[in-house]
Amino acid sequence: MKPIELDRLLELQLAPGITARVVTSQTMTVAHVQLQKDAILAEHKHINEQIVNVMEGELELTVQGEAHVLTPGMVLVLPPNVPHSGRALTDVKVVDVFHPVREDFRQTSFAGYKD
Amino acid sequence: MKPIELDRLLELQLAPGITARVVTSQTMTVAHVQLQKDAILAEHKHINEQIVNVMEGELELTVQGEAHVLTPGMVLVLPPNVPHSGRALTDVKVVDVFHPVREDFRQTSFAGYKD
Repeated sequence: MKPIELDRLLELQLAPGITARVVTSQTMTVAHVQLQKDAILAEHKHINEQIVNVMEGELELTVQGEAHVLTPGMVLVLPPNVPHSGRALTDVKVVDVFHPVREDFRQTSFAGYKD
Repeated sequence: MKPIELDRLLELQLAPGITARVVTSQTMTVAHVQLQKDAILAEHKHINEQIVNVMEGELELTVQGEAHVLTPGMVLVLPPNVPHSGRALTDVKVVDVFHPVREDFRQTSFAGYKD
């Protein structure tokens, strides 16, 4: 049950200009995501519920055909299986949280408190 | 499925000098917590797994008798039912995430995408 230093984790490349450092717990995944200005996250969906927390910059998120511009202090809840896409209007930092665990992220993530 | 503006939410007072703005989704709770320097979070535990993400400042967290100083870029995973306490060494901002939902926080939290 030691603290995890994010900058010692491997980076997961999610798309060109989009990287994440990921922590997996028993029941959740937290992704600290950095997007470079103009980076595009193609439309996708997943079984995991997601809460998007924008910490820095401006992120355009399109959900079910509606575009939202998220800035620091804004949060968006995405239900499971809802298609969404994104575009970074500036450099952006986001804390994304998921339940259940993002199994597709697990390979490069730190195994939480298992050590 | 609209973005939530945290500064429009009621603040939950967790302890003297510790406030949170809380978003509840179907399966998770996210608390954007602000601690004033020297604020104390008394030892407590809960059934919820918790991931502590320190965004600003220095937070001393004591878990099972061991003190850790968390700074930005550090993450701590707390398994369910593990007693923990905290002390803010500076003003601190933390993003805490929980599964399952913190029912005790629900009264003042925004009901996610239910509207």
